[in-house]
Amino acid sequence: MLTLYFAPRTCALASLIALEESGLLFTTKKLNFAEGEQRSPDYLAINPKGRVPALVTERGVITETPAILAYIAQIAPAAQLAPLDPFEFARMQAFNNYLCSTVHVNHAHGRRGSRWADDTAAQEAMKAKVPQTMAEAFEVIDHKMLEGPWVMGEYYSVADPYLFVMTGWLRPDGVDPIHFKKSTAHYAQMIERPAVQRALEREQA
Amino acid sequence: MLTLYFAPRTCALASLIALEESGLLFTTKKLNFAEGEQRSPDYLAINPKGRVPALVTERGVITETPAILAYIAQIAPAAQLAPLDPFEFARMQAFNNYLCSTVHVNHAHGRRGSRWADDTAAQEAMKAKVPQTMAEAFEVIDHKMLEGPWVMGEYYSVADPYLFVMTGWLRPDGVDPIHFKKSTAHYAQMIERPAVQRALEREQA
Ligand SMILES: N[C@@H](CCC(=O)N[C@@H](CS)C(=O)NCC(=O)O)C(=O)O
Ligand SMILES: N[C@@H](CCC(=O)N[C@@H](CS)C(=O)NCC(=O)O)C(=O)O
Repeated sequence: MLTLYFAPRTCALASLIALEESGLLFTTKKLNFAEGEQRSPDYLAINPKGRVPALVTERGVITETPAILAYIAQIAPAAQLAPLDPFEFARMQAFNNYLCSTVHVNHAHGRRGSRWADDTAAQEAMKAKVPQTMAEAFEVIDHKMLEGPWVMGEYYSVADPYLFVMTGWLRPDGVDPIHFKKSTAHYAQMIERPAVQRALEREQA
Repeated sequence: MLTLYFAPRTCALASLIALEESGLLFTTKKLNFAEGEQRSPDYLAINPKGRVPALVTERGVITETPAILAYIAQIAPAAQLAPLDPFEFARMQAFNNYLCSTVHVNHAHGRRGSRWADDTAAQEAMKAKVPQTMAEAFEVIDHKMLEGPWVMGEYYSVADPYLFVMTGWLRPDGVDPIHFKKSTAHYAQMIERPAVQRALEREQA
């Protein structure tokens, strides 16, 4: 049995959607960030980094969104959520790693600036630049990376839920998604999927 | 034929070492960051993100260190640079993704703070916190993640060159590596490997 530790309105939604798509049996545990549950001793024993998502399996814990997404795809081959060909798989991982190391990191400077500077004026300066860094990243995504209709072109993969989550952060980050036509069309397609609906309901529950 | 685009003293060294370990035929192209070659139109046509590493293959370009490392391992199975078991592979990817999304990002706040704030005082505040964020990340790596003697325990993998590069950044980032016994021992083992020596020579050439 798989257990996903998550918190609502975080990057963990990508893993939650992937689990819903996979057909695998799983349960979820919701952490309350307002109460700092991600830093409780119990949770740090699961993920010493104090972040979500974390996927607890019978063999141990997997963290980091791109690793969890690829793992879900690999243990649920019937759902065809990742290419088997090494080159195509690497292209998918490159996409997911860009979201993880650049797009998510840009976003985090709006709310979690204290990770990188103690000074509150510095944190405000970081926050002020988020609309620009998010828009610049989506310029690259929309014009150079996203093939459409899905991230990998004709076939759906675990890169799609991850992009969906990042596109959903544009408006709260002060960027009008309308500028990014392919990403906006992608988001609209995603929201129609039953797995996405189920994941969003689970977030609320 | 594979071509790795790199610049000296960057995270691209991990991919260079992995190529040297793999036994694959490859060439390298060195970019001059001082002259901004990573933002030249020619290079942006290869990697629109304007960063290294980028691995040019006959089928297209792969970017992002964890994706490149896993790809090298997968196309050179005889070198046994990554586990085949999906759970072990996911553990390796989780490790590499942590280096990519957190450790490398912490480091980048020392030199590339202008990515996340325009204000020079804010950039100074980010720089000032780098020793702390790097040390905190290595606390987790050394005490909770690194099994030893290699990242994955008894077997060497592409996670090892990547950790080697990050450990090498500690001293320039104002952290004394002596605090991190396992990482320091790991570094000392790595530097003895012929593939690492060849990669370092290629950086200088
Ligand atoms: N690189 C990690 C980042 C995980 C991460 O930063 N998660 C955020 C939520 S989006 C979190 O747990 N934040 C809690 C905190 O900073 O205390 C991944 O992609 O999984
Ligand atoms: N997430 C990317 C990051 C690549 C990256 O930031 N590379 C740096 C060198 S360590 C770079 O090319 N910097 C050039 C610049 O910022 O102009 C990866 O892991 O490959």
